Amino acid sequence: MAILQPLIDMAEICYQQGIRHVVISPGSRSAALTLAFARHGGFQAHVCIDERSAGFIALGMAQQIDSPVVLICTSGSAAYNFAPAVSEAFFQQIPLLVLTADRPKEWQHQYDGQTIYQTGIFGPHVKRSFEVSPDYQHPDVQWAINRVVNEAINLSSIAPNGPVHINVPIREPFYPKSDEDFRASTAVRVIKRQEKETVWPQNVWEELLDEWGSAPKILIAVGQGKPDAALNAVLGRITEEWQIPVLGDCIANLSGNEFIRHHDLFMGRQDSENLRPDLLITFGMSFLSKEFKQFIRKNPPRHHWHIGEDAFLADAFQSVTREIPGKAVVFFENLFEKLDYQSFVENSDLGHDTSFCSLWLQNERNAQKSKYEMLQNLSMFSDLTLLDSTFKFTENNIQLHIANSMSVRYANVLATENQWSGVFANRGTSGIDGCVSTAIGAARVNDQPTLLVVGDVAFLYDRNGLLIDNLPPNLKIVVLNNAGGNIFRMIDGPGSLPELETFFETRHSFSAQRTCEDSGIAYFRVSDLSGTEATVKEFLNFNGTALLEGFTDPVENTRAWKELKRSAH
Amino acid sequence: MAILQPLIDMAEICYQQGIRHVVISPGSRSAALTLAFARHGGFQAHVCIDERSAGFIALGMAQQIDSPVVLICTSGSAAYNFAPAVSEAFFQQIPLLVLTADRPKEWQHQYDGQTIYQTGIFGPHVKRSFEVSPDYQHPDVQWAINRVVNEAINLSSIAPNGPVHINVPIREPFYPKSDEDFRASTAVRVIKRQEKETVWPQNVWEELLDEWGSAPKILIAVGQGKPDAALNAVLGRITEEWQIPVLGDCIANLSGNEFIRHHDLFMGRQDSENLRPDLLITFGMSFLSKEFKQFIRKNPPRHHWHIGEDAFLADAFQSVTREIPGKAVVFFENLFEKLDYQSFVENSDLGHDTSFCSLWLQNERNAQKSKYEMLQNLSMFSDLTLLDSTFKFTENNIQLHIANSMSVRYANVLATENQWSGVFANRGTSGIDGCVSTAIGAARVNDQPTLLVVGDVAFLYDRNGLLIDNLPPNLKIVVLNNAGGNIFRMIDGPGSLPELETFFETRHSFSAQRTCEDSGIAYFRVSDLSGTEATVKEFLNFNGTALLEGFTDPVENTRAWKELKRSAH
Repeated sequence: MAILQPLIDMAEICYQQGIRHVVISPGSRSAALTLAFARHGGFQAHVCIDERSAGFIALGMAQQIDSPVVLICTSGSAAYNFAPAVSEAFFQQIPLLVLTADRPKEWQHQYDGQTIYQTGIFGPHVKRSFEVSPDYQHPDVQWAINRVVNEAINLSSIAPNGPVHINVPIREPFYPKSDEDFRASTAVRVIKRQEKETVWPQNVWEELLDEWGSAPKILIAVGQGKPDAALNAVLGRITEEWQIPVLGDCIANLSGNEFIRHHDLFMGRQDSENLRPDLLITFGMSFLSKEFKQFIRKNPPRHHWHIGEDAFLADAFQSVTREIPGKAVVFFENLFEKLDYQSFVENSDLGHDTSFCSLWLQNERNAQKSKYEMLQNLSMFSDLTLLDSTFKFTENNIQLHIANSMSVRYANVLATENQWSGVFANRGTSGIDGCVSTAIGAARVNDQPTLLVVGDVAFLYDRNGLLIDNLPPNLKIVVLNNAGGNIFRMIDGPGSLPELETFFETRHSFSAQRTCEDSGIAYFRVSDLSGTEATVKEFLNFNGTALLEGFTDPVENTRAWKELKRSAH
Repeated sequence: MAILQPLIDMAEICYQQGIRHVVISPGSRSAALTLAFARHGGFQAHVCIDERSAGFIALGMAQQIDSPVVLICTSGSAAYNFAPAVSEAFFQQIPLLVLTADRPKEWQHQYDGQTIYQTGIFGPHVKRSFEVSPDYQHPDVQWAINRVVNEAINLSSIAPNGPVHINVPIREPFYPKSDEDFRASTAVRVIKRQEKETVWPQNVWEELLDEWGSAPKILIAVGQGKPDAALNAVLGRITEEWQIPVLGDCIANLSGNEFIRHHDLFMGRQDSENLRPDLLITFGMSFLSKEFKQFIRKNPPRHHWHIGEDAFLADAFQSVTREIPGKAVVFFENLFEKLDYQSFVENSDLGHDTSFCSLWLQNERNAQKSKYEMLQNLSMFSDLTLLDSTFKFTENNIQLHIANSMSVRYANVLATENQWSGVFANRGTSGIDGCVSTAIGAARVNDQPTLLVVGDVAFLYDRNGLLIDNLPPNLKIVVLNNAGGNIFRMIDGPGSLPELETFFETRHSFSAQRTCEDSGIAYFRVSDLSGTEATVKEFLNFNGTALLEGFTDPVENTRAWKELKRSAH
């Protein structure tokens, strides 16, 4: 048996539990973990020297496959470089299994290299943080590691999914001898955790249906979530058959013309109190639209049901009155069985108000129309015109990734067609720190054309993701290069400060071109309206990893964005 | 009074406490902090979009000026990106004042943007983590913030120095109105902390002198520390007048030909048991030389005094028998007064063994001679030949920064002349994650020619430091581009693994050239012996920020390094 046999067995347990991807940052302390996964034969191993990017690449993969991805790093500050991705995975509920090699405790704070305090290093941003003992020959340690790895994998995939950390102190020697038997034990034990289903008892349904019946105006609002055909179908039936408006940002991944998607444009209108629901039903994670959140906070519904498997009481609208634990799709399918529209209308105290849905749809159609008119009339090149063209010429079934800051705000207004196979953004913590790497990770495993929209600052921040070998050829990147953090010019407050350009926008003259040349990415650029269409098409049709950089003017971007936001008012 | 008046006053307290530098990463939540420092007028403000690099830039500055540098970031994962630098600052004992804007507690875990758990986010890697209350109008809060800022600044500079964190939850509005009075209160209170001195009572000296007298063979070994003329002088007298060998790695910053600096080369010799001291005296932080550490662990001295102001019992040699709290320079100056050489020799039980010092010096001279001969005979271009030339043609009074991994190992053997005004390396955690940014920060404030030696992997990892505006013209960077993590080929273990190139070295074909073009850095390259001298000279004489990239062969590097290590055996 190898000295570090339990670490070799870790890989085998992961494999038997269905894990297939591992993202490795090189190191000596972690060599046994690296070799265990590299030599196993059943894993796709992805190597990235920068742990910060490695973390987000793993996150992007796990986001797609809904199954934990293993992350491996050496001891010391390496682990801290995983932290931004770990916190995003925690709040975006993405399963990761984070294995950090560590020096044994006895070397803490001894002026000896690569030793920091790794126990619980991710704080509350992991579902649990385990630590194993470095005496790998002890039978209790072997039992514990086996159990801990099983527990960690299972835990990462119990809703709400999330990252789980195992800290692994390792003593020298780190590397196997050439004649050392480096195979998993034959008796590796796998502990499967059975799935469970949530049902709601009859008395709960009665209470819910009573409240439902007492609310003439009902609104369903969908937070961030992955595309889900069954959920989409039942929501489509609810809005069409029952005339209940269903609203979702682009990252809600609703698909169909019957849904409300332009609320970000029209919620600021003066007469919008009429849009206040009596009963609001929400599920999913973050909402992008600040206008919608503020509207509900100012116009709270009488009842607000929040459906979900959250580990905490999420009340972003400050109006939740009932938590309904469970899956939204199951809830709505059950609701459909319990409730037929006829009795719903007849039994309601005040009568179901179908004009409420009409009003929402009217607003939606008006906003959409105004948006199209406004976009057609834009005569100057800007972030908006470039994105509009890009989305127009993008084929169906493309996966869209959007960076934080302005990109995600643009996309929530422009990416409203049904062309996307999925829309993703790191809205767990809403940082700009891993947008490029997340898209790289996603594109590596999703087998779909993948489009990333990212501003220049977020692109530069995370350019080290591009250091990974074999960039996915299915990835296209649009960089909105407005020479700084344009968002600060657009939001209220900093726009008029004398410090705007230096301390907020941080104006610069960097371009993505040389970074593309370094990483073998085909590079396209556009800086005016006349060249846009041809360049966008050429870029989108390019066979391989490609990047289109649009050089836009921050003042014009601000003007165009404010005009667009005003257009639907 | 401004709504966020206590935050404006923070800057004034920092100023009155002597702080002059602030490194800012842009954000809205942190706008009041940014403006407080930007508008104060007394600070040099440095802006960096990437918080990871910003952290190390601040660390590099504080390392030079020995006074806290302020770091500011917005809420969310931004704070986590400071963590690698914060942990390095903690273990390298560098004062930082880390101000993280935060969302108020009520928005934690509410699916609302940029909200993570920031309370105590740096774990045990700060000296203390404070948190203020967001109700800035309350007099108790105003009092507390005033006290906390004073306490944090004072604490960061009490030995051992280190980072202190203040988490600052801020509610909207973030930006002052144009007519808002944005000046510090006139009654800002500053709480000075007086310096204190450590003395040792007479009975302690008697005990120490007894032990000293009973030890014929005494060795002084110096860990990482800044250049200190007074310390250097007293150590010079001790080794010359008392014939006690004084040993230090390049990062010990000893200056003078009387000291032992080639121990890394000769400690592996067979006959080295003769080098075992009866009394070992150490002080300072990390030791680079693994050979020396292992030698002492295998040949423990009878007595081992460790002098220092550490907050923990540092025992990297596993032999400490006495902790002597206080400053080494004061201790040795006191010792010099207490002890005259004559009585020292006469009173010692066994007689002071002057041959011990001769043996150390003989080894030193032999190793140095072998090294020079070996270097002269190298006929192939390699990391070693490039570094040797660079150091040879570097003028005196240059500050040297060395990245972790192979660079620091090379430098410990090659950077042994007295030409350096200081030698620095991030040996607190020994990560490769911030070497470039640290040197940038140092060069910004040290007003000296500054040379950074860095491998290709560490360079790529931290290239975002180069995104900062106005790169210091006094900075020169040498990139040893051996197309991967060459260290894995050199150390025992991974060199012969089939996974070497993919999972450890991570072989790549990136060069620093385009990154230099992006950042306006003059770029020089060399890839053979014949071109080295002219290019190195041209590079060193260039007036402005410049980078010299040497393209070396990892196999040849390994051969040359192993030959050098063997040469003195």
